[in-house]
Amino acid sequence: MIKVGIYGASGYMGGEALRILLEHPEVEIAWLTSRGDKPVEYLNKNLYGAELKFIKPEEVTPCDVVFAALPSGQIMKKAREILATGTKVIDLGADFRLTDLKQWERVYEKAHADWQIAEEAVYGIPELHREEIKKARIIANPGCYSSAAILGMAPLVKNGLIDTEKIIVDGLSGTAGAGAETDRAIHHPEIGNNIVPYNVVGHRHTYEMEQELSILCSTKTLVHFTTAYVPITRGILDICHCFSKTKMNRDELIDLYKGFYQNEAFIKIIDLPKDAGSSWQYIPYPWVAAVSGTNYCHIGLDVDEERGRIVIFSVLDSLGKGGAHVGIQNMNLMFGFEETRGLKRQGSHPY
Amino acid sequence: MIKVGIYGASGYMGGEALRILLEHPEVEIAWLTSRGDKPVEYLNKNLYGAELKFIKPEEVTPCDVVFAALPSGQIMKKAREILATGTKVIDLGADFRLTDLKQWERVYEKAHADWQIAEEAVYGIPELHREEIKKARIIANPGCYSSAAILGMAPLVKNGLIDTEKIIVDGLSGTAGAGAETDRAIHHPEIGNNIVPYNVVGHRHTYEMEQELSILCSTKTLVHFTTAYVPITRGILDICHCFSKTKMNRDELIDLYKGFYQNEAFIKIIDLPKDAGSSWQYIPYPWVAAVSGTNYCHIGLDVDEERGRIVIFSVLDSLGKGGAHVGIQNMNLMFGFEETRGLKRQGSHPY
Amino acid sequence: MIKVGIYGASGYMGGEALRILLEHPEVEIAWLTSRGDKPVEYLNKNLYGAELKFIKPEEVTPCDVVFAALPSGQIMKKAREILATGTKVIDLGADFRLTDLKQWERVYEKAHADWQIAEEAVYGIPELHREEIKKARIIANPGCYSSAAILGMAPLVKNGLIDTEKIIVDGLSGTAGAGAETDRAIHHPEIGNNIVPYNVVGHRHTYEMEQELSILCSTKTLVHFTTAYVPITRGILDICHCFSKTKMNRDELIDLYKGFYQNEAFIKIIDLPKDAGSSWQYIPYPWVAAVSGTNYCHIGLDVDEERGRIVIFSVLDSLGKGGAHVGIQNMNLMFGFEETRGLKRQGSHPY
Amino acid sequence: MIKVGIYGASGYMGGEALRILLEHPEVEIAWLTSRGDKPVEYLNKNLYGAELKFIKPEEVTPCDVVFAALPSGQIMKKAREILATGTKVIDLGADFRLTDLKQWERVYEKAHADWQIAEEAVYGIPELHREEIKKARIIANPGCYSSAAILGMAPLVKNGLIDTEKIIVDGLSGTAGAGAETDRAIHHPEIGNNIVPYNVVGHRHTYEMEQELSILCSTKTLVHFTTAYVPITRGILDICHCFSKTKMNRDELIDLYKGFYQNEAFIKIIDLPKDAGSSWQYIPYPWVAAVSGTNYCHIGLDVDEERGRIVIFSVLDSLGKGGAHVGIQNMNLMFGFEETRGLKRQGSHPY
Repeated sequence: MIKVGIYGASGYMGGEALRILLEHPEVEIAWLTSRGDKPVEYLNKNLYGAELKFIKPEEVTPCDVVFAALPSGQIMKKAREILATGTKVIDLGADFRLTDLKQWERVYEKAHADWQIAEEAVYGIPELHREEIKKARIIANPGCYSSAAILGMAPLVKNGLIDTEKIIVDGLSGTAGAGAETDRAIHHPEIGNNIVPYNVVGHRHTYEMEQELSILCSTKTLVHFTTAYVPITRGILDICHCFSKTKMNRDELIDLYKGFYQNEAFIKIIDLPKDAGSSWQYIPYPWVAAVSGTNYCHIGLDVDEERGRIVIFSVLDSLGKGGAHVGIQNMNLMFGFEETRGLKRQGSHPY
Repeated sequence: MIKVGIYGASGYMGGEALRILLEHPEVEIAWLTSRGDKPVEYLNKNLYGAELKFIKPEEVTPCDVVFAALPSGQIMKKAREILATGTKVIDLGADFRLTDLKQWERVYEKAHADWQIAEEAVYGIPELHREEIKKARIIANPGCYSSAAILGMAPLVKNGLIDTEKIIVDGLSGTAGAGAETDRAIHHPEIGNNIVPYNVVGHRHTYEMEQELSILCSTKTLVHFTTAYVPITRGILDICHCFSKTKMNRDELIDLYKGFYQNEAFIKIIDLPKDAGSSWQYIPYPWVAAVSGTNYCHIGLDVDEERGRIVIFSVLDSLGKGGAHVGIQNMNLMFGFEETRGLKRQGSHPY
Repeated sequence: MIKVGIYGASGYMGGEALRILLEHPEVEIAWLTSRGDKPVEYLNKNLYGAELKFIKPEEVTPCDVVFAALPSGQIMKKAREILATGTKVIDLGADFRLTDLKQWERVYEKAHADWQIAEEAVYGIPELHREEIKKARIIANPGCYSSAAILGMAPLVKNGLIDTEKIIVDGLSGTAGAGAETDRAIHHPEIGNNIVPYNVVGHRHTYEMEQELSILCSTKTLVHFTTAYVPITRGILDICHCFSKTKMNRDELIDLYKGFYQNEAFIKIIDLPKDAGSSWQYIPYPWVAAVSGTNYCHIGLDVDEERGRIVIFSVLDSLGKGGAHVGIQNMNLMFGFEETRGLKRQGSHPY
Repeated sequence: MIKVGIYGASGYMGGEALRILLEHPEVEIAWLTSRGDKPVEYLNKNLYGAELKFIKPEEVTPCDVVFAALPSGQIMKKAREILATGTKVIDLGADFRLTDLKQWERVYEKAHADWQIAEEAVYGIPELHREEIKKARIIANPGCYSSAAILGMAPLVKNGLIDTEKIIVDGLSGTAGAGAETDRAIHHPEIGNNIVPYNVVGHRHTYEMEQELSILCSTKTLVHFTTAYVPITRGILDICHCFSKTKMNRDELIDLYKGFYQNEAFIKIIDLPKDAGSSWQYIPYPWVAAVSGTNYCHIGLDVDEERGRIVIFSVLDSLGKGGAHVGIQNMNLMFGFEETRGLKRQGSHPY
């Protein structure tokens, strides 16, 4: 049993970490912080009766590991001090995700408070950085859109199959991805029967995608990334368009993907045939709802052989495999637990 | 470990039983039947990679218990034979729910095939029939609206606090309650931004409510029940209006309810104060989304002291505490497992 | 052509009045007020290109009539002065809806600023108060839930057919009814797949219902009213449960309703037969989506003859027949225009 | 007044044509056909009380113009005969949209029944083919995704500003675009909280886009088109990614677009500044909900100057500017009515 604290547990990301950690057999929740003064169950009616209380950040006690689900710029000021007490840190936010200081400061529009710690932090995609994660004291948990795109295109990029300067990604997100703070664009009357495109240039996750994909192919990549909110509550679909450098058909690519991820418990390649039946229930692509609330990433794909384009559909939950759940997967690795411990719950159908 | 079979696993109810049983530590899935010929994961993308196959009903093998998630009228023809082999039966459908043959035949518009078995079957609400369930060979799992209403009003009815001839229940259901068969009223373009009231007179669940509530108060009850679909995927809210016979305020009633259900793991009484704050996030009533995908029932209430009315809000998931999950709770009781085994997962937030 | 001003045009109600008045052939929009400083089309993208500007309330110019879509308590301070200039007033808010000063002050939790004007104001349901509206200088436009319930039960109450002390109304509302101000309960991640019951005791519209229904039957009425938000954007369904004093069947009641509203352009009685077909598309009750964006109220009903209960389903749009549109119907009456002028647009399908 | 008939009025497209034509001051509805036997208001509750009846296709009478909203392959067999009687034809379907017979037959997987008529038909985008439409006897009304994409990219392609072999379009559609026939992928429980990508290769609308864009630039174009359903009822967002051949910034492109469409009543270029405010309500891109139920197309755009990409967001209603409404705009042109006659209704807010 390890002691775990959660900074910022009243938001959606912290609340999701709490839900999963409460059922994790190796974990004892030490504390939860929040600026608010209400019991947990006011916001998290799903945990009604759990009798949990938020404390102030000033009241925290020693832990084996802390999860930070804080607004940008806060944990970078505290991490050094926390690490110094022997406590590990998993940042569910963005303070340590980039490896280039100048870019971080430009993208996040502030000076970084502790770049040495940022350099130490390991980017927390276990499928790509498992060994480093096992040894890490501090994890930069990846962005949600980034996770989906990087996992979705890693086999293509690693194998040099596509033009890496013309990668187009349309990221469609459920509204939980926008967080618990109210805003008129996520006000139900506005978005309940609407689509809200909100970013074209310089979305912060772009730089994570370019950073990680460039590592895989040892050359520069350009990710052309656009985002929109759709009226679902949870989950992300990244539609990734790649121009192929060699001729490959759908079956060959599916085999490549299945090989690439063959030892991964949480990555599923959708290999449904395209001619299964005439009804749309036989569509051979992944569905966001199937992975909501879980640590799974489902990847499907197709090839337009006539026009030389590969399309990757990558779905995950921004609070799950794109957030708190993968943070716990990282925790399992850091503490030598079975990697899938506490994370094997399947998605619901319907969701 | 017990061997479990599921009849009708390609529908939503059978699929949900499958999802929960797959993660149940005492259970081995023996088989799943379906009339269709596709692998499970075509319909249940949430289980992608589980490599499960449906078999035909003719191909089943012996089990310790079978769950039946079949259209009305099918399992009543098979149950006797199944029981004779020593296999227990949990009917997630409606073949054995009523105790009055004539009413059953009138309500279900067909002749009953085996009333002796129906008379043996125990109505599967553990909070009211726990001891009988432990000894039962066959369970009539309750209807979803019925479960919410019966659990919601049992303390009032049992204690003789209300006029039992003027109980009004408005049942609001997510569309999963309508099942997996397509129908124009549940076609997304029709209901996605709509409310669809669909029944006023003689909804089948009315008779379960009247039957069970009458047992509790040893007198006749009349439940005036109306139903509507709202555009959520899962979950039910029963709004129950009762006219009080004595003066009681909200706090007294909340205490009564907490006492009534004090030993129940899956019933939570929402006891939030009414004056917590001005924002609607402090509404002291239960939310459907908090129990979706779980075996929990959340009950909240309020009293209009001026007009003599008590309102009970009872929420559960029609596939969860109102369906497959409570069926598994019953299975746990029947086989001497811990009652909460495999059922403790909390709801998600958001859902 | 008359000159029309709108106070509070940046909210949903004022914005809807604007949309309809822009297409009204007898109307010239004189001005729109808002506290904000952005062009109209920032909030009302539906009017993109209309080149309308908000002004400050201090900058208004003389008009023939003003619509007030202001927070509670504001227009009551200005109405006397506006009326003194010969300008008529249609209050889309609640300042003048009740006829009992003490009740108004209790319900709205403030002192009324000008009760003499409140006494002059006519309650703006044309189907019940047409002749007074024609002569009025000031209209108290009815609440949305109230309009649906009063129109829905007027024929029953007027004809003495029901127990008027046990009228139960469950009001289900789309989120636009909550207004444009953000709040966590209407934040999309919270309500997008949820139902939010929010009021049991003393909802303000209760008193309008009791006031108007009592006039119709010349005796006291008690309306037991509960409300919930469901995840649709617009529209209201009031489910009204009444206990009948005499035996009447569905067909007789439908005839009664059709007679009662035979000369009304905007009230439609759903007279679909109950046995039209097995698919749910033949459900003989009204659908909210059919009247969204319009001035129509659709009323359907059914009778549980066995249990002595009548159920009325009354649907309208809280911004339409329950708000801005009926305000314009009132304006038409006040200025001698054809009553349906500018209001005949049909609903969309799907919506 | 002209006499108008509608073939296939019981579907969503035919029903929408009916709704708009009923309010068109120059039109008398002569008849509506449907294979079903129910009154119109069973399906179109929005028209309740209109007392319209469907007739069989065999019972039609002479008209000035007919709208065809039929499944693929039907109207091509009848058009010659209809035209011969002097009746004009507006095909809301796909029988006459392509100019290359071989491609049509490959894409629609059948032999074409009357290619001579197809060659005569004018592709019905008024902004690009106004003069031909005025003189036409038969119109091939464009596909919904195609309309949005072609209108969205015409100024770029016409002016030679982009690489026309690498045009990527992600088409996001509301479920009404899937039509009134039920299918499990559009069943509410499946898609209500989900995203359903459904096509990567060879969507039929691809060929319309390539055909029309190639005309504009007099060279071959390749459109890489992918589609997904999102849980909104109506409307389409095409996200179009183009790689620019010359440097242009957002303001310059907005000016170009405003110039290109300066005389068009139904095309609005969203020219909101990017720095209007920190809240998302100031997002300077178009919203689908703003044009639902209308004949408007809203186009917004942005430029990633660093990576050389232009993004066009083009929104319209698949039953409106992408369907029945533009068909009526074409009818207005063909009969010499004012082009905007009967089509000026603004969108609703919220929708």
